[in-house]
Amino acid sequence: MSEQQKKAVVLLSGGLDSATALAIAQEQGFRPFALSFRYGQRHAIEIASAQRVARNAGVEEHRVVDIDLGAFGGSSLTDDLAVPKGRSDEEMSGGIPLTYVPARNTIFLSYALAWSEVLGTGDIFIGVNAVDYSGYPDCRPEYVEAFERMANLATKAAVEGTCPVTIHTPLVRLTKAEIIRRGHSLGVDYGATLSCYDPGSDHMPCGACDSCQLRAKGFAEAGLKDPALV
Amino acid sequence: MSEQQKKAVVLLSGGLDSATALAIAQEQGFRPFALSFRYGQRHAIEIASAQRVARNAGVEEHRVVDIDLGAFGGSSLTDDLAVPKGRSDEEMSGGIPLTYVPARNTIFLSYALAWSEVLGTGDIFIGVNAVDYSGYPDCRPEYVEAFERMANLATKAAVEGTCPVTIHTPLVRLTKAEIIRRGHSLGVDYGATLSCYDPGSDHMPCGACDSCQLRAKGFAEAGLKDPALV
Repeated sequence: MSEQQKKAVVLLSGGLDSATALAIAQEQGFRPFALSFRYGQRHAIEIASAQRVARNAGVEEHRVVDIDLGAFGGSSLTDDLAVPKGRSDEEMSGGIPLTYVPARNTIFLSYALAWSEVLGTGDIFIGVNAVDYSGYPDCRPEYVEAFERMANLATKAAVEGTCPVTIHTPLVRLTKAEIIRRGHSLGVDYGATLSCYDPGSDHMPCGACDSCQLRAKGFAEAGLKDPALV
Repeated sequence: MSEQQKKAVVLLSGGLDSATALAIAQEQGFRPFALSFRYGQRHAIEIASAQRVARNAGVEEHRVVDIDLGAFGGSSLTDDLAVPKGRSDEEMSGGIPLTYVPARNTIFLSYALAWSEVLGTGDIFIGVNAVDYSGYPDCRPEYVEAFERMANLATKAAVEGTCPVTIHTPLVRLTKAEIIRRGHSLGVDYGATLSCYDPGSDHMPCGACDSCQLRAKGFAEAGLKDPALV
């Protein structure tokens, strides 16, 4: 890792997508600085996955920021509502799901923006995806473009022209199978990732929530075995 | 306060501007929900001021969210750099000051967006001001407009059309003297507010930082006595 390489902040959730986004940032020659959040998640094991992914990728700095989204309520990922299980493709593509967290990516990207300015870079990677679209408005390209435009008016470094902000979304147009094939070719250790919204006490995925179903379908279409299930 | 009144989230810092923005929100018929932040500030008394202002205004709910901006560094308001004192008007208007906090208003507005969606409203008030411009890029109208546009693509409630987001900036075109006259006519208790970047151990303003100087000039031009100095 060279000092000459450009730094980038990479949002890292511990899931499959952000692990792939991290590998793509490295492939593109960036020095990644990983950023994760504890946000009243019911599952601190997400953070443990993010830490494993960052370590396996040789990330030089990984910060975990505590944020209290739970204080505002409004989602089954932070509240005690049940995570929906066994939904059909049709149900999954219909509207915005219960697992939606208000303004989540906006808050995450805002922190990434703050850290990137302090690091002296404007490059931020986020593993959002609009193909296997689960109905989250803040995963769409038009949202990310609007955030980028706002960010370029928000910070000293962007306004003064030293660090224009670019929000990189390398996965936005890929199917889940394409993401997995891409990550596989880059050597991503998917065994370290966790996608499940509701893992068991043994940390194994439930296999039935939307995220588990999308992941299983993606590995099947990519013709690969999910190493997290071995 | 009627249940029929529309809710609004009002960002409240404990300073003069946000106290005035709160009074204007009430004058416009909104039910204000006040939101403040502990962000590694060296002065917890800012929060005490915000609490006094909210109480005096009869706000029904005031949340204080802990955020760790200090973890990223980069400002004399969160780091241990010295606050600049006794700067001339020319120095104050020249460039972005040391007291700048990276992406601060972006993070604050993102939390306000999350809470507003949970409250079932899209109305957010922020007391930014671009006239007595101290060089903060995230206080300019073009920044706020870009945030509003992004927010309307970010949340379920905005995208589904139930709660379009409006970022209200009632002070953006007012001079400090006009803000003070306006608040005075609305009965704002400026004795409860604190503007100083570096108050003494007796909680009295230093009188020499940019913020104290702008405040003193504002009261002088408005022809009013600052009740915080009595």
